[in-house]
Amino acid sequence: MRVNGRHYKTIWMENSDVLMIDQNKLPFEFVIHRCAGYIQTCDAITNMTVRGAGAIGAAAGYAMAQAFMEGENPDNARLRIAATRPTARDLFYALERVYEAGKHSAEAAITEAHNIAFENEEAGRAIGIHGNQLIKNGAHILTHCNAGWLAFVDYGSALAPIYQARDAGKEIFVYADETRPRGQGARLTAWELQNEGIQHKIIADNAAAMLMASGKIDLVITGADRIAANGDTANKIGTLEKAILAKYYNIPFYVAAPSSTFDLNTRTGADIVIEHRPADEVLWQTGTDRNGDLHTIRVASPGSDALNPAFDVTPNELITAFITETGIIEP
Amino acid sequence: MRVNGRHYKTIWMENSDVLMIDQNKLPFEFVIHRCAGYIQTCDAITNMTVRGAGAIGAAAGYAMAQAFMEGENPDNARLRIAATRPTARDLFYALERVYEAGKHSAEAAITEAHNIAFENEEAGRAIGIHGNQLIKNGAHILTHCNAGWLAFVDYGSALAPIYQARDAGKEIFVYADETRPRGQGARLTAWELQNEGIQHKIIADNAAAMLMASGKIDLVITGADRIAANGDTANKIGTLEKAILAKYYNIPFYVAAPSSTFDLNTRTGADIVIEHRPADEVLWQTGTDRNGDLHTIRVASPGSDALNPAFDVTPNELITAFITETGIIEP
Repeated sequence: MRVNGRHYKTIWMENSDVLMIDQNKLPFEFVIHRCAGYIQTCDAITNMTVRGAGAIGAAAGYAMAQAFMEGENPDNARLRIAATRPTARDLFYALERVYEAGKHSAEAAITEAHNIAFENEEAGRAIGIHGNQLIKNGAHILTHCNAGWLAFVDYGSALAPIYQARDAGKEIFVYADETRPRGQGARLTAWELQNEGIQHKIIADNAAAMLMASGKIDLVITGADRIAANGDTANKIGTLEKAILAKYYNIPFYVAAPSSTFDLNTRTGADIVIEHRPADEVLWQTGTDRNGDLHTIRVASPGSDALNPAFDVTPNELITAFITETGIIEP
Repeated sequence: MRVNGRHYKTIWMENSDVLMIDQNKLPFEFVIHRCAGYIQTCDAITNMTVRGAGAIGAAAGYAMAQAFMEGENPDNARLRIAATRPTARDLFYALERVYEAGKHSAEAAITEAHNIAFENEEAGRAIGIHGNQLIKNGAHILTHCNAGWLAFVDYGSALAPIYQARDAGKEIFVYADETRPRGQGARLTAWELQNEGIQHKIIADNAAAMLMASGKIDLVITGADRIAANGDTANKIGTLEKAILAKYYNIPFYVAAPSSTFDLNTRTGADIVIEHRPADEVLWQTGTDRNGDLHTIRVASPGSDALNPAFDVTPNELITAFITETGIIEP
């Protein structure tokens, strides 16, 4: 997709290095981060330089390929990569594929990692085409977190239908949930939409019900980090809230995700391990002042602590349909 | 209630000045703000130096009394005070009482303003006693925004039962919703709870459903800015979300408010005017860095705008009961 008029992907490989847009620096700075070895790529996953299910999957695949190129013990590398982020299904999916391919040769591992990235990109394109059918001209769409092209190798999942609808000439308007604590909606989704010239407003996560109650939201589209065999869906904290609200107001709630996010080995949402992240993500915020200087500030009472579950699980009964690269699927 | 071991009220009058805890400076600095004339008191309401339904009511009453003392045209002053914040019922209730009293004399206006503040304090005390009956030993309670003593003259509404439960020797735990965009939960509720030594954690507004789904919340208590004759309740943006979630998980949802918040002239929630506040409240955040220096930083993509409704209306069907100074009332 476009950044300042030029085409970029979220993550790619050059020789033995993995390159990625540094998503911790967005939206204030646009910087390409280079990982010269698989451990650096692991660190980039853990500290969320790269984030979003599809992009994490591609990163994990590339990291495993790097480990083979570096002559690392593949079993150790596999464990280390698997420990970077616990919730994303795509991570394990990509990791296993590259791990298996690497049993033949490091070259085969690299090829497999490239295949995964390419498939991810193609899945985004197809999700957009299918999802566009669900969007009427004039639609007002709510999205949570960032499941745009930054969360994938390109195109995205939740935002792919929105880009496609725009390309099809539809007038659309997007409400981007801020998505506390990390603010991926306010920082990344808004940044993507602005670069793509799509009309939007950021809202506090608290405002969605009020907008639904006043008829301002026609449909909700979110991404997914892991979808269990029964359709229960783990995604960014707050997704479950929006799904319950949409049900209450009879608004369609769609989950857009490539097949690689479906985990048939996980029977229901109850089997999904939820990542808890540091309290400081809630208590502190980073951004730039009016002079453009970056600060990290405390936004909560100094004597208090926070609890920070990073994901929640939306039960299948709250999901109108899944938008995948193969078409629209009901739970 | 206590600040650093000393007793304070949120707002009071000394001679012709209105004094108040500066809530824009909390939780980083504890400063008393002095309003030497009614226009300064109006400004303090508008810029939220004083906030919270009961405290705004007291401030409006004192401002009207000041206007009489200053020999202002009372009708002009009344209009100006009424325009400071559009949603809070208590503001109009207090304003009218002092306006009427002032027809006799400025002294009568001052006495009436003091009466209103005293009644507000007593109402908080009684709400606490009644609400305590709804709290079991060991309860985990979710609250939204700040309806603690800082939102009233003293004691509070939503937090009053919590203080009373603590005084009664119950073990309780409070989850404080951060309450974006202004963060009153993370900044004010957490600050109050910490000063009072009550166990609590701040959560992102997005995390409530996940905690409810995993059985971690036994009841929800919020305050109210205005309650219509049919029980529909306007309160801080996001209250409606929590009420819908509580309904979905069959968790009791209580609204604590003094009688002055009930507005029998407003038939239903549809008649309540919702205040929209500046987008910058969503886009920028203020806090202190690790050296204690205050900064205001952009937390959203620089090219994007925000929508900032400050309140929402929770329909009566979602409210288990109201906790008032006269007892527990079902809608």
